[in-house]
Amino acid sequence: MPAQRAFAQSVPIGTREVPARTLPVPDTVSPQMQAIIGRPFNPAFNLVPETTADWKTRIDQAAALTVAALPKIREALGVTVEKTTIAGVNAFIVTPKSMPVGNRNRVLLHFHGGVRVLNPGEAGTFEAVLMAGFGGFKVISVDYRMPPDFPFPAALDDAIAVYRELVKTTNPKNLGIFGASAGGGLTITTLLRAKQECLPMPGAIAPGAPTVDLTKTGDTLFTNDMVDNTLGTQDGFVRATALLYANGRDLKDPLLSPIYGDVHDFPPTILTSGTRDLYLSNTVRMHRKLRRAGVQAVLQVWEGQSHVQYMRDITAPETKEYHDEVARFFDLHLGR
Amino acid sequence: MPAQRAFAQSVPIGTREVPARTLPVPDTVSPQMQAIIGRPFNPAFNLVPETTADWKTRIDQAAALTVAALPKIREALGVTVEKTTIAGVNAFIVTPKSMPVGNRNRVLLHFHGGVRVLNPGEAGTFEAVLMAGFGGFKVISVDYRMPPDFPFPAALDDAIAVYRELVKTTNPKNLGIFGASAGGGLTITTLLRAKQECLPMPGAIAPGAPTVDLTKTGDTLFTNDMVDNTLGTQDGFVRATALLYANGRDLKDPLLSPIYGDVHDFPPTILTSGTRDLYLSNTVRMHRKLRRAGVQAVLQVWEGQSHVQYMRDITAPETKEYHDEVARFFDLHLGR
Repeated sequence: MPAQRAFAQSVPIGTREVPARTLPVPDTVSPQMQAIIGRPFNPAFNLVPETTADWKTRIDQAAALTVAALPKIREALGVTVEKTTIAGVNAFIVTPKSMPVGNRNRVLLHFHGGVRVLNPGEAGTFEAVLMAGFGGFKVISVDYRMPPDFPFPAALDDAIAVYRELVKTTNPKNLGIFGASAGGGLTITTLLRAKQECLPMPGAIAPGAPTVDLTKTGDTLFTNDMVDNTLGTQDGFVRATALLYANGRDLKDPLLSPIYGDVHDFPPTILTSGTRDLYLSNTVRMHRKLRRAGVQAVLQVWEGQSHVQYMRDITAPETKEYHDEVARFFDLHLGR
Repeated sequence: MPAQRAFAQSVPIGTREVPARTLPVPDTVSPQMQAIIGRPFNPAFNLVPETTADWKTRIDQAAALTVAALPKIREALGVTVEKTTIAGVNAFIVTPKSMPVGNRNRVLLHFHGGVRVLNPGEAGTFEAVLMAGFGGFKVISVDYRMPPDFPFPAALDDAIAVYRELVKTTNPKNLGIFGASAGGGLTITTLLRAKQECLPMPGAIAPGAPTVDLTKTGDTLFTNDMVDNTLGTQDGFVRATALLYANGRDLKDPLLSPIYGDVHDFPPTILTSGTRDLYLSNTVRMHRKLRRAGVQAVLQVWEGQSHVQYMRDITAPETKEYHDEVARFFDLHLGR
């Protein structure tokens, strides 16, 4: 009996002990995607900044790298970017060189990813440039305020302010919203907020690997821990950004963790994740929740990919295929 | 330099070393599903029978357990089962007590799972009883021949013989096909064979966690190795059944591994898997392949579940939800 009790204490009933393993790079993806999947962890990936100044340094360094890469990507995809202000919020108008006739009266609103703190300013336009270029849509990318200076609800206030303004002049049925990771979470919380304000729903949304739960809840936060080479783990940097953003608020507040919200009456939704994604559970839990609420929600899961790797390399066939799928979904569900 | 070379030799570039971990039972699923997910491995799960007699003993013992459980399940779901023969092939007619009016002229053809060797006879009706009961469909469950006595192509010959016979009297548009695991693979290979014979396509199909690749190809065969407590691993019993079934044939033959086949002109398809499923990659690879071929293919992935656990307990809400989704899909796409 004492031995059993000791066992029960050290290994709770039902937990599974999984041995260490060596994961080969899958041969079921493109060479470009193999290079992304096979990339080692940056030794500094999980260091948590200690001061506000440290946070800003980390954010600025990451943004500088992205901004440096953007001109070539814009050129390759034939996309132009123009700074603007909408309802007092900084934003970028992202325009493709060529646009299908059916997209002329459509606009996509974009909330960038970056674990709630990264990708300020122009760096935040990266996903929007890809969607404009591959999908042939005009995109408005919102440069929402972020921690450390502006925790919750600044980002959501900015997101809803731009949405509120847009639906005054654009038929909401012609309007889609998309974003990856934190931007996918913000896409969903913006709709919860729009419901609170009795604003109309957009025509369709495309949250990619959305952060729908800021707590460490969801099976792949455990099974894909240190399997995912984008995020690595929920413990450390990711958790620190969640706490910085929440600023003391209950992490299960639906406007922080929309998996706890009411998603009835949501528009058609296309969700995306990967088999190695730390946020695969975030994604499939939201998919099931939307389906249970009667929403036309569809799911794509990419072979072998960690968090949001379907847009890491514009030459990867998976990147084009991802954007083709989302563009087709918007085309099917948005008004003209 | 020598040290670097030694490192490169022992750990190939791009592979990822993942440490051992303890996986808690997720709190994001029903209590019934927690019990299933938390179940330890049967110590004998990966023993490979050495002789034909050993295979038969293993198969008979497993079948006896399932057959013993079936009467209560049939009673709970209000389903009756009747033995029959179609085109010389053994089969079961599975009929629900109540059937929506819209399903009166519809039939679902069922190919059971069981890694190509398990679930002979009545044991094979388990999935059909659930679909008839939860979905309100008449189901014809095919008792196809299996190894060790009947390797490939016996199962496929039986499957296509029944299909060929059915489409003589039933409008193929009113006919759906479903099956889990090996039965999902057989669903897809039956369609490849039907295309070869210029038979019409059915109205829709529902392969659950289908075996679309008998080789050890696909990322979750590595990432979910010993995470999945249904199949455990591709190495051992699962591989042995693949070799027994293939009987010397190239494992990449599309009629064994339909991921290498041509799926153009396939009917609407709903695919299902789980985040811990060893066959998650099998499932998402086939989903992408179907989408690339322009097929209306949709994907469901269940939180925390290993291989085909969405039908392990008829009282689990996930089991009802799974069948509701598939029934809705068939209702949407089958003729009346």
